[in-house]
Amino acid sequence: MPDTAMTRRRFLQTSTSAAALWIPASVNSYTHQEIQDLYVDGSMQANVSKWELDTPSLCVDLDALEANIATMQDTLTRNDIASRPHGKTHKSPTIARMQLDAGAIGICAAKVSEAEAMFQHGIDAVLMTTTNVTATKIRRAMNLRHANPQFIQATDSEQNARLLSEAAVSMGITADVVVDVDPGGHRTGITPGQPALALGQLIDQLPGLTLRGLLCYDGGSQHVKGFAARREQTLERLLGATDTFDLFNSSGLSTEIFSGGGTGSYNIDHETRGLTDVQVGSYVFMDAQYMDIGGADNDELYADFVPSLTIMTTVLNDQYPGRCTTDAGAKACTINRPWPRVKGEIGMSYTSGSDEFGTLRYEEEPSRTYKVGDKIELIVSHCDPVVNLYNNLYAVRGERVEAIWPIAARGMST
Amino acid sequence: MPDTAMTRRRFLQTSTSAAALWIPASVNSYTHQEIQDLYVDGSMQANVSKWELDTPSLCVDLDALEANIATMQDTLTRNDIASRPHGKTHKSPTIARMQLDAGAIGICAAKVSEAEAMFQHGIDAVLMTTTNVTATKIRRAMNLRHANPQFIQATDSEQNARLLSEAAVSMGITADVVVDVDPGGHRTGITPGQPALALGQLIDQLPGLTLRGLLCYDGGSQHVKGFAARREQTLERLLGATDTFDLFNSSGLSTEIFSGGGTGSYNIDHETRGLTDVQVGSYVFMDAQYMDIGGADNDELYADFVPSLTIMTTVLNDQYPGRCTTDAGAKACTINRPWPRVKGEIGMSYTSGSDEFGTLRYEEEPSRTYKVGDKIELIVSHCDPVVNLYNNLYAVRGERVEAIWPIAARGMST
Repeated sequence: MPDTAMTRRRFLQTSTSAAALWIPASVNSYTHQEIQDLYVDGSMQANVSKWELDTPSLCVDLDALEANIATMQDTLTRNDIASRPHGKTHKSPTIARMQLDAGAIGICAAKVSEAEAMFQHGIDAVLMTTTNVTATKIRRAMNLRHANPQFIQATDSEQNARLLSEAAVSMGITADVVVDVDPGGHRTGITPGQPALALGQLIDQLPGLTLRGLLCYDGGSQHVKGFAARREQTLERLLGATDTFDLFNSSGLSTEIFSGGGTGSYNIDHETRGLTDVQVGSYVFMDAQYMDIGGADNDELYADFVPSLTIMTTVLNDQYPGRCTTDAGAKACTINRPWPRVKGEIGMSYTSGSDEFGTLRYEEEPSRTYKVGDKIELIVSHCDPVVNLYNNLYAVRGERVEAIWPIAARGMST
Repeated sequence: MPDTAMTRRRFLQTSTSAAALWIPASVNSYTHQEIQDLYVDGSMQANVSKWELDTPSLCVDLDALEANIATMQDTLTRNDIASRPHGKTHKSPTIARMQLDAGAIGICAAKVSEAEAMFQHGIDAVLMTTTNVTATKIRRAMNLRHANPQFIQATDSEQNARLLSEAAVSMGITADVVVDVDPGGHRTGITPGQPALALGQLIDQLPGLTLRGLLCYDGGSQHVKGFAARREQTLERLLGATDTFDLFNSSGLSTEIFSGGGTGSYNIDHETRGLTDVQVGSYVFMDAQYMDIGGADNDELYADFVPSLTIMTTVLNDQYPGRCTTDAGAKACTINRPWPRVKGEIGMSYTSGSDEFGTLRYEEEPSRTYKVGDKIELIVSHCDPVVNLYNNLYAVRGERVEAIWPIAARGMST
């Protein structure tokens, strides 16, 4: 049915034409396609406000994003340690480029598909922090290494190192490898000390591999509440990696890279001797989870970085007292806790437990109330999985949409 | 940098060429691109097993899916009620077509973007169950109605009905509308009885609108555990809608459509007088949430339908006793509870609380154990948001991938 298909395609391509005649003065908002049509040569031709976006939409505040990147880089430079920000958070080559331009020495990737997407969009200095264990994944990683000499990958077992060597040799390439060391969470990584040393020595001897050092990411310490407790746990759980670092050094193995740490410990990690760079991710966006861990100067609120990532949602129903229903539920917000927070307002709570709908409830003395059609801006619960729901990120300056960034590695979980 | 861009594109287009030389005999799996390349004229040229898929990947068992669709249709036909399955669950025009071919009278959509995607892929009989409240959403809905005469939309306030009328008149079309009635959850819908009647009468009088009836979706009753308790709550909470149905009838308003119910109440809803069709969604896939609600014959397990939706994942780390780490975390499984279940195995539990990694833990007498590189098949926790994470669904017959279906409405939350 080619004619029908053509009609359907034409409908979707021109779906703003017929009814665009009807625009009530009081309310308007733009679809993704309409906003793209407003761009000519990459510059916005109309003053589209974030409050005019069709919803739910994911926005990043550019002033906050730029401030977060600058704050991170300034602090790390002062502490004499580098940053290697994690791309799993933003999945955006545009933000990766901003981080590199600010001084980051590379970008981390959690999956080989993420590393491929970064490379496809111009980001070369990528360290993949997860071990590739299947033939498929190893083949993808070696192909990427073949095309991108700056690609580095992690390994955490002797069996895997032998497979990597075999693959590299068969391709006539040399692959750069770091040893992933377990900080004690037993999620990934080899046991620090002698097992890690033995793996490092094996890599150093195997053909086709170049040992570049080690990494130790302690996810379990990033959200410890209270700075003192977080500092104590972070430093204690990096001791095994430091021992391994010493063993590598005394055995003549490379420690050019000793990577670890994250947004919760970015101003602690430099106290670990030998650590070269921190794999900070969430600091670019912040979220309700991180706001709650407390900072060095404020045990209640982690205010080192500014929440930049928000979801715009619309009130769909206000018929019942004490609450209203919105269009941003679990498919737009995830069900991570703490729940999203209404930006700039107090005396209300938001939940996104329903797949399609959010619920806003008024508490005592809400700073405002809402009626059908009103927009609400939400600070996200947990940035990483929220970003992974959206194809595009609206980059906003003040209230104006300045650019639309594709979330190029969205859904790249393989 | 056109040359670099070309190199990057060529790398990604041909990324299986160079290292494809290296394939250890013991392990193999296929990327999405490789499987697509195996198709010629839509038929699979190689016997790709689901166990050979690159992971994480989302699979549907075709035998189970077909059985679920047949079971639902047979039961509803026996109970003299129709089905109007909800597309928010599968977001797949292919599955919508299977449902229509089996006898469904239409497909529901939760969002206008979902309804657009269904129409673009050949699904015309779409009822949108959510009210469109902004000018943008109304414009999109009216454009869709203009192109697709079978599109029907819900409304739940007089203010909204007036906006719909204004938009339809300005376009010179007539829009089909149903009244969304609140079952008591206060999420969406107008209060049943006189308020709903007044809205129906208004729609009946407004230019540009055709009243087709009403809907009442009681999401809160679908997961009530135990058949008797679920039956009692379901029928009690539909009483207001039945009153409204009676008021519509006695006032000469159309009750051609009286839609409601879902997978948890599919064999209860027909007891509600006047109900024309059930908006069943999850039955096509089932999930751990629904398995736990119990059925009419089995209070422990809801076994009316067969779990058909699974995630294939790979073991990444087995170095620590009692557990292993996989590549399917929150970004592949969501964090809905109950957690995903390992299909066909006992004595083990799975959690997907980490963004990138899953954790399998052995309990007493596990039916098997795993080593690095082994594949695990997971029954999903909650099908709707899991489907919304993936671009493609692998349709599997037995163990063989028979087709790859695009999840065309993935991420369609606007």
